[in-house]
Amino acid sequence: MISDGDWYTESSDELGLGFGLKIRGKLHEERSPFQTIAVYETETFGRLMTIDGLVMLTDRDNFLYHEMMTHPALTAHGNAARVVIIGGGDCGTLREVLKHDHVEHVTQIDIDERVTRVAEQYFPRLTEANDDPRARLAFIDGIAWMREAAADSVDLIIIDSTDPIGPAEGLFNEAFYRECHRVLAHDGLMVQQSESPLVHQQLIADMSAAMQRAGFAATDLLSFPQPCYPTGWWSATLARASARELVAPARDPAFETFYYTADIHRAAFARPAFMRR
Amino acid sequence: MISDGDWYTESSDELGLGFGLKIRGKLHEERSPFQTIAVYETETFGRLMTIDGLVMLTDRDNFLYHEMMTHPALTAHGNAARVVIIGGGDCGTLREVLKHDHVEHVTQIDIDERVTRVAEQYFPRLTEANDDPRARLAFIDGIAWMREAAADSVDLIIIDSTDPIGPAEGLFNEAFYRECHRVLAHDGLMVQQSESPLVHQQLIADMSAAMQRAGFAATDLLSFPQPCYPTGWWSATLARASARELVAPARDPAFETFYYTADIHRAAFARPAFMRR
Repeated sequence: MISDGDWYTESSDELGLGFGLKIRGKLHEERSPFQTIAVYETETFGRLMTIDGLVMLTDRDNFLYHEMMTHPALTAHGNAARVVIIGGGDCGTLREVLKHDHVEHVTQIDIDERVTRVAEQYFPRLTEANDDPRARLAFIDGIAWMREAAADSVDLIIIDSTDPIGPAEGLFNEAFYRECHRVLAHDGLMVQQSESPLVHQQLIADMSAAMQRAGFAATDLLSFPQPCYPTGWWSATLARASARELVAPARDPAFETFYYTADIHRAAFARPAFMRR
Repeated sequence: MISDGDWYTESSDELGLGFGLKIRGKLHEERSPFQTIAVYETETFGRLMTIDGLVMLTDRDNFLYHEMMTHPALTAHGNAARVVIIGGGDCGTLREVLKHDHVEHVTQIDIDERVTRVAEQYFPRLTEANDDPRARLAFIDGIAWMREAAADSVDLIIIDSTDPIGPAEGLFNEAFYRECHRVLAHDGLMVQQSESPLVHQQLIADMSAAMQRAGFAATDLLSFPQPCYPTGWWSATLARASARELVAPARDPAFETFYYTADIHRAAFARPAFMRR
């Protein structure tokens, strides 16, 4: 798929799918030590961040992804005090985690500091909670961090990574999940973005199997809309370190959300008929 | 957004959004008395039907739309025997309606017979139930049909139309809804596709208000993924002719579905936080 200058387009020959946003112009582009980060001003979706030519987020629809990567897992845990985010350099996930009063500290570990600096400049709403005294930002390799972290030291791990190619590839395998399992408390949870329920069914099945081989007792799939990602339908896989019940939401959150509610929480766990087979 | 010959692309300057499917070639194109109908062979989504350059359906993902335009409303009604489909010429909605044993007859009223003939040729799975003795196909104007239909003669009206521009414009206003309300039985329901929850909020609000001005007692929004439509997130508005309870699904359907289940039914009614405001 090619495009004229008024459109940002992302297309995948493998998926056979393309997506485009009408743009006013490019605000920023840089080559960090890890990847190429760009920011565009779109006509209708606010600002757009891309990494290596792939859509990461837009102002208009990132609330879906960020809320669904955080609130279901935090609610299902019940009282996660120690949270780690692997990836998530745009800080949108961090901001949502910090809305939960029971969180005592949250460490965001993204290998590329430039993503955070670009977000601070162009997406200030995402980084507005970065000064929260409970937040720590580390710009190091998440795999190495996890290998060195103490056992039983984290209640919730959120893996908010790019696609399982390039820098994030090592975040989608049994060896990494084994380290996560070791680091988690007995009743801990892990949640990882797991691509599209429609076109990445094999990846979703493989991730769940690898998590279980790594020691996780059970996995659940959460699904939710995400217009700027391929198919507009996205998922996260929630894994339990041990056999435990997930906490169901008793009421809507006390803080402001744009998508998440107690009903949306329950809805996200509903499994399409084709995924049961 | 422009495209080379290997991609079918649909883009809207108004929405600022574009969508593309990689294609192998065009199988069919004709100008009917009402619109231009085309069929493409895609690389990864099976066949694609477009009308006036807009994506209508693909083999791979039409199950989402067709199941969600039918099973929630039929289940919520409880025992709809007399069903009318306005639009729906591709016959996918008709096929799903006929899976319900309590349906005694269903009339599909699409102004353009050519859509059905093209579907018979290129999407035979969608038209496979057309010979069911309970099915009637009429190729006439749905607005005129509704005006002449007897009061109290239909249990469920499904408005499966194209966007509210062009031929379908007259299906999105109070005058038409008033006729639908007259034709419906006291406990009748109406369901109409209502575009994207993210980018058509005004249309959704306007439709609901017009339905209520036309006499409907209440409306609910159903939302579901639909990758080939703008934003990949779609909705249907379900209206009750009178104040009645909707029937909740007691169990999964006895017939085969690819998306719909009892859990998905409940999930579809969950309202995002931003829609409550």
